[in-house]
Amino acid sequence: MTCDLVIFGAKGDLSCRKLLPSLYKLEESNKLSKNMRIIGVGRANWSTTEYISIVQKSLKRFMKKKIEEDIWKIFSTRLNFCNLDVNETDNFLKLKNILCRRNSVIINYFAMPPNTFSSICKGLGKMNLNFEPNRIIIEKPLGLSLETSKEINNEISKYFKENQIFRIDHYLGKETILNLLAFRFANSLFYYNWNNKFIDHMQITIAEEIGIEDRKKYFNSTGQIRDMVQSHLLQILSIITMSKPIDLCSDNIQDEKIKILKALRPFNSVNIHKKVILGQYSSGIMKGKKISSYLKDIGDEPSNTETFASIKVNIDTKEWKGVPFYLRTGKRLPKKYSEIVIFFKPIPINIFGNHYNNLYKNKITIFLQPNEGIQIKIINKIPELELKYNLTTANLNFNYSKDFGKVILFDAYEKLLLEGIKGNRSLFVRRDEVELSWIWIDSIFNSFKGRKMSPILYSPGTWGPELSNSMINYDGNKWNEF
Amino acid sequence: MTCDLVIFGAKGDLSCRKLLPSLYKLEESNKLSKNMRIIGVGRANWSTTEYISIVQKSLKRFMKKKIEEDIWKIFSTRLNFCNLDVNETDNFLKLKNILCRRNSVIINYFAMPPNTFSSICKGLGKMNLNFEPNRIIIEKPLGLSLETSKEINNEISKYFKENQIFRIDHYLGKETILNLLAFRFANSLFYYNWNNKFIDHMQITIAEEIGIEDRKKYFNSTGQIRDMVQSHLLQILSIITMSKPIDLCSDNIQDEKIKILKALRPFNSVNIHKKVILGQYSSGIMKGKKISSYLKDIGDEPSNTETFASIKVNIDTKEWKGVPFYLRTGKRLPKKYSEIVIFFKPIPINIFGNHYNNLYKNKITIFLQPNEGIQIKIINKIPELELKYNLTTANLNFNYSKDFGKVILFDAYEKLLLEGIKGNRSLFVRRDEVELSWIWIDSIFNSFKGRKMSPILYSPGTWGPELSNSMINYDGNKWNEF
Repeated sequence: MTCDLVIFGAKGDLSCRKLLPSLYKLEESNKLSKNMRIIGVGRANWSTTEYISIVQKSLKRFMKKKIEEDIWKIFSTRLNFCNLDVNETDNFLKLKNILCRRNSVIINYFAMPPNTFSSICKGLGKMNLNFEPNRIIIEKPLGLSLETSKEINNEISKYFKENQIFRIDHYLGKETILNLLAFRFANSLFYYNWNNKFIDHMQITIAEEIGIEDRKKYFNSTGQIRDMVQSHLLQILSIITMSKPIDLCSDNIQDEKIKILKALRPFNSVNIHKKVILGQYSSGIMKGKKISSYLKDIGDEPSNTETFASIKVNIDTKEWKGVPFYLRTGKRLPKKYSEIVIFFKPIPINIFGNHYNNLYKNKITIFLQPNEGIQIKIINKIPELELKYNLTTANLNFNYSKDFGKVILFDAYEKLLLEGIKGNRSLFVRRDEVELSWIWIDSIFNSFKGRKMSPILYSPGTWGPELSNSMINYDGNKWNEF
Repeated sequence: MTCDLVIFGAKGDLSCRKLLPSLYKLEESNKLSKNMRIIGVGRANWSTTEYISIVQKSLKRFMKKKIEEDIWKIFSTRLNFCNLDVNETDNFLKLKNILCRRNSVIINYFAMPPNTFSSICKGLGKMNLNFEPNRIIIEKPLGLSLETSKEINNEISKYFKENQIFRIDHYLGKETILNLLAFRFANSLFYYNWNNKFIDHMQITIAEEIGIEDRKKYFNSTGQIRDMVQSHLLQILSIITMSKPIDLCSDNIQDEKIKILKALRPFNSVNIHKKVILGQYSSGIMKGKKISSYLKDIGDEPSNTETFASIKVNIDTKEWKGVPFYLRTGKRLPKKYSEIVIFFKPIPINIFGNHYNNLYKNKITIFLQPNEGIQIKIINKIPELELKYNLTTANLNFNYSKDFGKVILFDAYEKLLLEGIKGNRSLFVRRDEVELSWIWIDSIFNSFKGRKMSPILYSPGTWGPELSNSMINYDGNKWNEF
């Protein structure tokens, strides 16, 4: 069955930076079905010919590689433009006229802010374009709290069933995240060690070097926790801790993730200050460059929005009781990278004890990006002429680009678009996942309510406020270093 | 307290190739005590001056590095020569006269064949040079069976107590062997997985590229099993499987090794042909060079001596019941190296089962020599554009020379000599270890008795007879490949 991809927000940032380059690359990989059309929707008064030339310019700007003439020739014939104001329900007739020329599955990508979702759904509904197997692909943020998230989901669900709704969290399209299932459930060497008997604690970091760039308004109303923790960090946390699913079916995997999200210990006004540290970047110097403060970046307004958070999480299951999980994310940090670090408890009885009361901990680092790979830190004897058992650590490394031959790590959006077009829900987020995340995230902000919740200033190029270190040091641990 | 080192067999191969270069390097490392003398003993009619110049020539020939003038100056003043026929007990007076000039600990290194040990001990005893803390250092082979080994040990023990006897197995001086204790008992990631619940099987290989060189007579009466399995391979096997010792005291470690040696399942005439494969190299071409057969190498005599053996070992303890250990060693094999390979059982329920009925096995390879290091083979998802869970393996590597900075892996003999001089028995083999090894080795040869025990011919540069593969394939396993 042929399909058509409708992109609402044809002119927007997401379309230009991610969707169109990914679609072009899918074309190049010969993954788009022969008759599939791509229909850009927007308020601009473009003809399809104009749109084609705009897409070409946009690809030239945002793709890292040159456009190939023969690929472009095929790709450009797929492009259509539909002038439409999503707030005018009647306008959707234009879209219907384009789409109903033939009988195809319609995939609607909402590359617009969530406050437009309701109108788009209404318009599609009015024109009877919302029947199965048509579907919609939407992006976070889906609300700013459980309540607002429910509102959005409720609005959408008036027109689309849950199995027609594909919610993107682009981390789920990353090869290193997908590999977590293989890593955890195909390697017996680690599988049996994956619980509170053996694991001491875990750290998950998503660090950004950039500031808020041109997302002032959005970011200031959202903040780092709602933007990054609610989505990416909780997804990673649930995948790295979930029990083995019965099989790889989407729902069975999601059911296991749900169990983790349900077991996240909520915060309260008593423990919140020991478990959640918020920061906001000040002005400063970073890599020799002058950096303006967050407040300056949003236009010299007062704001309590956090640009950094570190959070100590407890998961109240029999597998994870007693194991702290430290999440950390922020802007204007020293370097852009994401990683998961798993620390193992040392062997209780230390025969090397004369010299070392505390053995080093074994550690597995999963480098999510960049320099994707896996590192295992083991303990070795220091080679010495005299017989002593002085210990040190050594790292065993696997790196995708160095050790995996000429492997291409496909971009997350390429994978997600491909699975979305194919109608495979595995890489998308279910409504119950989103809402359970919000319940827990809400407990953070509710716990601060009535008490002071102003983020602590930190200098650009540092790892956030010093309290972030104190929080983890208090437990006898410290943030992973390179 | 000062000490003197007496080397019986001053002219011999062991002295020239190993002992003198190691002593020189210990000098260089400033590890020899100020007044320590080195007294070469032999039948040659050399003066000390002649001996010094002979040592210098020998060092030049066998050391990989240049002799430093200032080191040599100190080293050469330590050298003495004592002309002595060990069969003439009265001759030992000459040695006594040299030694008793002062009150020092006397360390006697028997760098001569075992059939001389009795005479040397008698001579030393006659001159009252056998009192504690004087000691002797001796080398394998200590006999060719339990009986002959006991004979040698009994002769020696007439003059020296067990704690004065230092038996060398030079594998125990290798850094990679010493590291096994740290690897096993400091890494919780592996510690808990080290038994028959998790480990599928192990392989230990010591491969030699050379033939028998100039050891015709010795080797033809000994063979590969008595020469290599009884000593090095059983040492490695017992260290890699022993339980955690209470501490690092020599006797506590040896006590744990003993438990393994006692639990080695003996062979009998029924199972021997399924568990022990013997080979003897034929003539052939190896790396473009013509290689003569073993029979030719020993002078065209008929011989059933094995130059290759692969052996399936069972250890009847609760930890290792059901885990096969495959030992393999031989001459004229494709390359010189030693390694331990540990294969882990796959996870019983395979969620990637649609594509893979049998998951790959996790594998740890410990490279003993050369290219000392550790490799862990893990299972990864193959990066693909479409969402599939095709699996592959990836290797995580640690290499001493690449990853451990400017580390020097000291030669085993340097370490052994140093500990011998210091009187630390940790790296030496206890009598009960030797005798238990012989009991098990004897069960091999006794099981063959009366039945045909002729080794199978194999071409130089191959991994021994094809039956060696069949033996391991029969269990569903195969020899580790590079």
